[in-house]
Amino acid sequence: MAFLARIYVTPRADVLDPQGNAVAHGLHSLGFGEVTEVRIGRYLEVRIGGSDRAAATEQVTAMCERLLANTVVEDFRFELDALASDR
Amino acid sequence: MAFLARIYVTPRADVLDPQGNAVAHGLHSLGFGEVTEVRIGRYLEVRIGGSDRAAATEQVTAMCERLLANTVVEDFRFELDALASDR
Repeated sequence: MAFLARIYVTPRADVLDPQGNAVAHGLHSLGFGEVTEVRIGRYLEVRIGGSDRAAATEQVTAMCERLLANTVVEDFRFELDALASDR
Repeated sequence: MAFLARIYVTPRADVLDPQGNAVAHGLHSLGFGEVTEVRIGRYLEVRIGGSDRAAATEQVTAMCERLLANTVVEDFRFELDALASDR
């Protein structure tokens, strides 16, 4: 068995997002004048071996804290789906 | 009223993801040996004015096709939530 973690890393609400502001400007320039805000984060899919959901949850949390997210300025959350063993 | 679009942009399944491979290596180096694959995409939150869900859906699709995703090598999907007017 294995797990697929779908991880969402987003800028914290109180942190400026210059990349999002740049994209919002780009959308305005393209004529999408009704856009009021853009925030940009990352979406990761991580496949992990093992059959213990609690252990996998703990591992993914540690991965996010140590490498995948900068918790000073980013939040993360994830969902964990069990995969059939042949995937 | 307004809408919040949650947009997921991911590398197409048949496209190499060097950034994901680099992160997989990094996770192995940190001791997460059970990781078998990492794919990295983007997660965007876009707020849009207006009260017509069909029009908003059409706009977000156009934004993705014209700016937010490179549809040659990326797929996109999104969810659209109605927001209260004061947000």
